[in-house]
Amino acid sequence: MIDFCLVGAGFIGPVHAANLAAHPRARLSWVVDLDAKAATTLAGKYGAHATPDLAQALADPAVRAVIVCTPPRTHVTIVEAAARAGKAVFCEKPVDLDLARIDRCSEVLERTGVPFFVAFNRRFDPSHRALHDAIRAGEIGRPEMLILSSRDPEISPPDQVAATPYGIFYDTMIHDFDMARFLLADEPVEAFARTACMLDERENPHRDPDTAMVVLKMRSGALVHVNSSFRAVYGYDQRIEAFGEKGMLISDNWQATTLERWGHDGIRRDPLLHFFIDRYAESYRRELDAFVEALESSALPSIGLDDGRRALVIAEAAVRSAKTGAPVALPS
Amino acid sequence: MIDFCLVGAGFIGPVHAANLAAHPRARLSWVVDLDAKAATTLAGKYGAHATPDLAQALADPAVRAVIVCTPPRTHVTIVEAAARAGKAVFCEKPVDLDLARIDRCSEVLERTGVPFFVAFNRRFDPSHRALHDAIRAGEIGRPEMLILSSRDPEISPPDQVAATPYGIFYDTMIHDFDMARFLLADEPVEAFARTACMLDERENPHRDPDTAMVVLKMRSGALVHVNSSFRAVYGYDQRIEAFGEKGMLISDNWQATTLERWGHDGIRRDPLLHFFIDRYAESYRRELDAFVEALESSALPSIGLDDGRRALVIAEAAVRSAKTGAPVALPS
Amino acid sequence: MIDFCLVGAGFIGPVHAANLAAHPRARLSWVVDLDAKAATTLAGKYGAHATPDLAQALADPAVRAVIVCTPPRTHVTIVEAAARAGKAVFCEKPVDLDLARIDRCSEVLERTGVPFFVAFNRRFDPSHRALHDAIRAGEIGRPEMLILSSRDPEISPPDQVAATPYGIFYDTMIHDFDMARFLLADEPVEAFARTACMLDERENPHRDPDTAMVVLKMRSGALVHVNSSFRAVYGYDQRIEAFGEKGMLISDNWQATTLERWGHDGIRRDPLLHFFIDRYAESYRRELDAFVEALESSALPSIGLDDGRRALVIAEAAVRSAKTGAPVALPS
Amino acid sequence: MIDFCLVGAGFIGPVHAANLAAHPRARLSWVVDLDAKAATTLAGKYGAHATPDLAQALADPAVRAVIVCTPPRTHVTIVEAAARAGKAVFCEKPVDLDLARIDRCSEVLERTGVPFFVAFNRRFDPSHRALHDAIRAGEIGRPEMLILSSRDPEISPPDQVAATPYGIFYDTMIHDFDMARFLLADEPVEAFARTACMLDERENPHRDPDTAMVVLKMRSGALVHVNSSFRAVYGYDQRIEAFGEKGMLISDNWQATTLERWGHDGIRRDPLLHFFIDRYAESYRRELDAFVEALESSALPSIGLDDGRRALVIAEAAVRSAKTGAPVALPS
Repeated sequence: MIDFCLVGAGFIGPVHAANLAAHPRARLSWVVDLDAKAATTLAGKYGAHATPDLAQALADPAVRAVIVCTPPRTHVTIVEAAARAGKAVFCEKPVDLDLARIDRCSEVLERTGVPFFVAFNRRFDPSHRALHDAIRAGEIGRPEMLILSSRDPEISPPDQVAATPYGIFYDTMIHDFDMARFLLADEPVEAFARTACMLDERENPHRDPDTAMVVLKMRSGALVHVNSSFRAVYGYDQRIEAFGEKGMLISDNWQATTLERWGHDGIRRDPLLHFFIDRYAESYRRELDAFVEALESSALPSIGLDDGRRALVIAEAAVRSAKTGAPVALPS
Repeated sequence: MIDFCLVGAGFIGPVHAANLAAHPRARLSWVVDLDAKAATTLAGKYGAHATPDLAQALADPAVRAVIVCTPPRTHVTIVEAAARAGKAVFCEKPVDLDLARIDRCSEVLERTGVPFFVAFNRRFDPSHRALHDAIRAGEIGRPEMLILSSRDPEISPPDQVAATPYGIFYDTMIHDFDMARFLLADEPVEAFARTACMLDERENPHRDPDTAMVVLKMRSGALVHVNSSFRAVYGYDQRIEAFGEKGMLISDNWQATTLERWGHDGIRRDPLLHFFIDRYAESYRRELDAFVEALESSALPSIGLDDGRRALVIAEAAVRSAKTGAPVALPS
Repeated sequence: MIDFCLVGAGFIGPVHAANLAAHPRARLSWVVDLDAKAATTLAGKYGAHATPDLAQALADPAVRAVIVCTPPRTHVTIVEAAARAGKAVFCEKPVDLDLARIDRCSEVLERTGVPFFVAFNRRFDPSHRALHDAIRAGEIGRPEMLILSSRDPEISPPDQVAATPYGIFYDTMIHDFDMARFLLADEPVEAFARTACMLDERENPHRDPDTAMVVLKMRSGALVHVNSSFRAVYGYDQRIEAFGEKGMLISDNWQATTLERWGHDGIRRDPLLHFFIDRYAESYRRELDAFVEALESSALPSIGLDDGRRALVIAEAAVRSAKTGAPVALPS
Repeated sequence: MIDFCLVGAGFIGPVHAANLAAHPRARLSWVVDLDAKAATTLAGKYGAHATPDLAQALADPAVRAVIVCTPPRTHVTIVEAAARAGKAVFCEKPVDLDLARIDRCSEVLERTGVPFFVAFNRRFDPSHRALHDAIRAGEIGRPEMLILSSRDPEISPPDQVAATPYGIFYDTMIHDFDMARFLLADEPVEAFARTACMLDERENPHRDPDTAMVVLKMRSGALVHVNSSFRAVYGYDQRIEAFGEKGMLISDNWQATTLERWGHDGIRRDPLLHFFIDRYAESYRRELDAFVEALESSALPSIGLDDGRRALVIAEAAVRSAKTGAPVALPS
């Protein structure tokens, strides 16, 4: 049984807490949140301790691992504290938005030698993973084109655009950049991006891009297209299409039911699941399970700090391309 | 080039006329209809002769084949006249509703030796045919269950219920009974039927069954289910499902377009094609082509009078079962 | 927090145990099984007590509810003991195969007044339930035909055919009979059944039916068709189609992933989930939740002993029809 | 009845010839081809005259319209000759690959005033057209992203790469560039393109791009992505996805049958139609019909020379972007 300390009781925190509670070999021991009440409420649900003081939780020798799901700019500080306390770390993405800070964090992690995992949960979605495994197994031969459609039904979290300019790259497409690397087992050499503000002033008051298309060129020559929007009215749209010399693989959306309604006006299925936490519920379970298994077997977690760093480098290149209008070369 | 005489300018007649016109090796030479104006209109469209007098058209030595698409109870007389004139015959289903008449007609056909074809067009639908071929090729091993859903969007033709009591068996399911024989290459030994009147007095004033379910037991032990309705509001619904020891085959519906509309309320596709002549347009072309090919190669047409007779025998058994409430054994 | 005693550690027992463990307001306190080791193993996983002695567990005043998931013929005895101990009862289907025993059990339940729930889990499948709700909401107007395809990939449990002659009706279709009642809010007045033995001697040594079709006629005149097989090689096949005056509703199968593989030979999706426990995982969670909610709110559980009895009456009629070859009237 | 002269008996010529033959108000009168034998063979099939001499056919006063389906670089000469002879012109795409020649041709057309139609057949595909009409009807509000997947199963015609460098833009994507303009009723202001050579030396000896991705920015701000390949092993892949503020529209592929094969290894549908002439058979019929209707009603054909020119301008910009690596601004 592995004892966890969860840092950050809001938003995605309760998802990880519930998955810890249901996991046969993991246990939620501490919930840390500056908002003491939020910490207490979440901890109380699962019989865990609550504290606003991270140091107190890290001082508990029973705690073996820390889940970091606070806002992005606080990640590194917490990661470093946990690492120095000798705890394994499971960190929400993005690790940070500043490459220099990530690099300093990397030194701390290397020095302390604790296992570190970046929670790119989509890698664990059953359909995306099956697509990945089929590519690896050679089902489509050499991959030639990858097309990722990654659309949110709304700007989420609501204050994100204000918080992070070009959040569509840093917050949403960063997942797709990671998936491109993961699925193709390849690195980009160039990024081209175009954006638009399609939402109205009320929905997008800062006029930060809410619609974007990217083309990546990979070392292998494979071409990648990503498109995103913050206004998919039909739900949270997540599709991947991998085209290769021997065929194509498509990972399609999930729906809440399989019901079809046949009437005068046609055949109707459910809209897509609206919320990414519902859509990727299984991914969250599986990524936690993968982390637990890595700790149990003393294996390296499958997604390390370098993966978090590389996804950020691509996002930065996309932002620069969007700003300058020219394609941006990526360091090889 | 094979010259055809078409008898019956209404309803399905124009479909066959157009297919003759488009066929590279067939030609519409005569249109016969008691309604001289209907004959003239249809014939004029394709440069054919028109007459209300069947004998006149049959006297033309250039005519090699006759298409009979008049109302069912006139079929046999026309078939016999055509046969006596030495013409090959393509006859719409049902051949007749009276087994004794069919048997007398059979004698005429045998004596004259002309090629005879019953137009069970569904055998020529590309999807149904692919299902048939897959069964024959052993893809599902021994067939164990066959389920045919065969539903009309309305009572059609509108006066049919009045014209033929239990028309749902004689006019609609007779196709499915033929398909069961064709797909399974097997004969039924028992029929059980249940019916209902679900349409209201205005739509179904004669209270003839408008909804029906049938179970057939085949010689091989395979079980067949057929269900029909005269009120499929979402269009003309035609599905076949063949289940066997090694798998299942499904021939699904066609739609006019592949368009999907994704919105707040879900994902919507087109309703089904509404009209059987649209749904089976390709079948009509292919059955005519099969008939032409049989004539060209002096082969026996693939569906003979006995097929028409056997489908009628099953329909009669279904009617008797519906009336008595008991299953009805079929002569082996 | 409601404390449960689970009776029967085999087969479906672990499913209910895991769902209890994950339920926020329920707790597994006791596992009872004559096989003390099985009880101990399952109990140990969730920190519950284990005993081979039902009386010992029932004597625990903290226990408020009992889940009965032993073999069917032991159900009634356990139900009665639990009821006499004043515990609410959640009982796997079928309650029993003997109507007289069910009736005696009914008296005990009435006398003791404990809440009783028959676990017809399919009522809680999200897609089936959405279909049910759409019918209730009038989306298809008056239901006219209901078609249930209910096929197992194998005879399951393996010794079932031996244990219960006509198990295809008593064990498999009993679910569909319940669903027909539930979905249509109607009762059957007649059952007709036909069966076949399609599996070979090795797979089905007792030559009990492994393939079956049923037609039910409902009071409202609606027609119901059920088909089952114990050899769906492509997985556990569970589809429902409800046809009505205003449209049709289809609850389709689930698959493990949404992956499509496009190649030379076509477009391929996953086979169906193989195992009913995977297919209906969500139903098992939701039926337990419904039971917990009923206890919390002192409401009557939504499926009572009478529902269990009525499904059995239909199964018996189907067996009689299969044996005699004639339709069987059902008591109104 | 409108008499046609068809110029070019190869490749797409027979498709137009057959559609003329089947059209109720059009007739094939002349087939012109330098290869006199090819002309004679095709003409013979439909009772038309054959000649290697265009002037001879144009001298026939009965001829009212000319279909130009010779190789692209001969189009303009024939178009001009036909225009000078006062014939309406239906011209295959691309009109030419040289903008200056197109402009000179434009003057001739203006001077002669004959109706002129560029055969961008995809505009007439029933599904694509339904998508277009839904956008026009406001179903998705303002269009924000358009994604066109346009993939050939092989380099086609086989010698194309040799014949036209960057044929993937000039021959294949030129359709998609036209569709972007047509569907969005908007013009591009910038094109960015990336290409790759994925086929091996044997399949693509000239190392001309066989794989490409393009991003267009439209005046309205909408973003367009096009991807193409000359090696879609699963068939001719043609999909359009239009995303807007109120929803999404998808025009999906067609398949030859609706058959599904369910087995141990999953559920399999047909591969896509392999050949563009099969895939777009209905488009070819409908574009001819639209041209005939325009002639009958003296309306302007719906696709004029300017449309052909604009699509070529976009293709040229894409080529320049692919060569230079930078996005290319389009003249407004």
